[in-house]
Amino acid sequence: MGDSPRFALFEMQTFTSADIAGMELLARVQFATSLPGAKPISLIGTTDRDGQTNLAPFSSVVHLGSSPCLLGMISRPDLVERHTLANLTEMRAWTINHLHPEILDAAHQCSAKYPKDVSEFDATGLTIHNHPGFPAPFVQESRFRIGLELEDVIPIPINGTRLIVGRVVLVQVAEEFLMPHGGIDLVGLECLASTALDTYFKLQPLARLSHSKPDAITRRL
Amino acid sequence: MGDSPRFALFEMQTFTSADIAGMELLARVQFATSLPGAKPISLIGTTDRDGQTNLAPFSSVVHLGSSPCLLGMISRPDLVERHTLANLTEMRAWTINHLHPEILDAAHQCSAKYPKDVSEFDATGLTIHNHPGFPAPFVQESRFRIGLELEDVIPIPINGTRLIVGRVVLVQVAEEFLMPHGGIDLVGLECLASTALDTYFKLQPLARLSHSKPDAITRRL
Repeated sequence: MGDSPRFALFEMQTFTSADIAGMELLARVQFATSLPGAKPISLIGTTDRDGQTNLAPFSSVVHLGSSPCLLGMISRPDLVERHTLANLTEMRAWTINHLHPEILDAAHQCSAKYPKDVSEFDATGLTIHNHPGFPAPFVQESRFRIGLELEDVIPIPINGTRLIVGRVVLVQVAEEFLMPHGGIDLVGLECLASTALDTYFKLQPLARLSHSKPDAITRRL
Repeated sequence: MGDSPRFALFEMQTFTSADIAGMELLARVQFATSLPGAKPISLIGTTDRDGQTNLAPFSSVVHLGSSPCLLGMISRPDLVERHTLANLTEMRAWTINHLHPEILDAAHQCSAKYPKDVSEFDATGLTIHNHPGFPAPFVQESRFRIGLELEDVIPIPINGTRLIVGRVVLVQVAEEFLMPHGGIDLVGLECLASTALDTYFKLQPLARLSHSKPDAITRRL
């Protein structure tokens, strides 16, 4: 009697705005930061004009455009001192340094609230890699790093966050992980994903799919 | 002689802005869309006021805040017809439907340029799930879905993209994957990550790390 379901069915639980607002603070933050699904995770490197370096993990890096090549990231409200935002506004440059399992613990440790005169490089043992003429520090242990110049800081009025917009001016990647079609092999690089405040994943290959057209069925490449 | 490196060293290749600008179009797009690292991937569900539904894959969903609970996503310039942007501006509501491997091919097929009068639900066989009183369609086969109300559409002047800001008003998730600390078990849900234009990953558990403090070492939980 009746169709059998095409997929396994799960008992779904529904949360309303009121349910979410009623959660205990830490649980609400863990829940809310789980909603995007898999998030990127990388270390953002900056310096102030006196050469005081800073590293901070961000999981909000997003593609904005390919021509020119632009990336964005979200900065939280500067109710407290935000070293990354202050530094990149001052120097108009920052770096994105992708992680792999060997540097995960050091990267996570960079989220601790160190005073401005303590560099997370010193605190965690990660090594500064400077590129000639580029005014922000890279992480030498990273296998995939990006240098950006500041283009814009766009206010998000509803909650005081900001979208930081940068133009990619330098990419350094372990050359064996460049793919023939132009993409970068995140599995080979052991690039990580994250969710919530504290949870990290490795990536496992699943599929590369053909360009979709209305009159053709998706194929696996 | 000299210190031995703490980590395996790789031969790094450096790309400048000029190198990137000189890439062939498709290779440049594959390269640029690889730069964020692991990206989320979900299907965005919308409808117009006549009930014409639309589904489109997005890999730019980002956490904006936990209180209120806000998510953002990037819409490309509307030089061509953008059904998602037009619908969510009209109805001020949309859904995020996370993927799992069984619905990946159908989800990817939704990126084909169907005319506005063809619903991607019909074209791919995915099933509409309506929630009483919520004016955008969910994907029934998804195990983790979110309903949002439009708060803002923020222009990103440098390339004509937009940051769409939404308030989370409904979350539906398979209840066995809610975790005691408030987070959501993306591995149990078989939630996916993506990179470039066409590449998808499964998530493999790596670590959950303790809250970082300057005077304490990161621990694995």
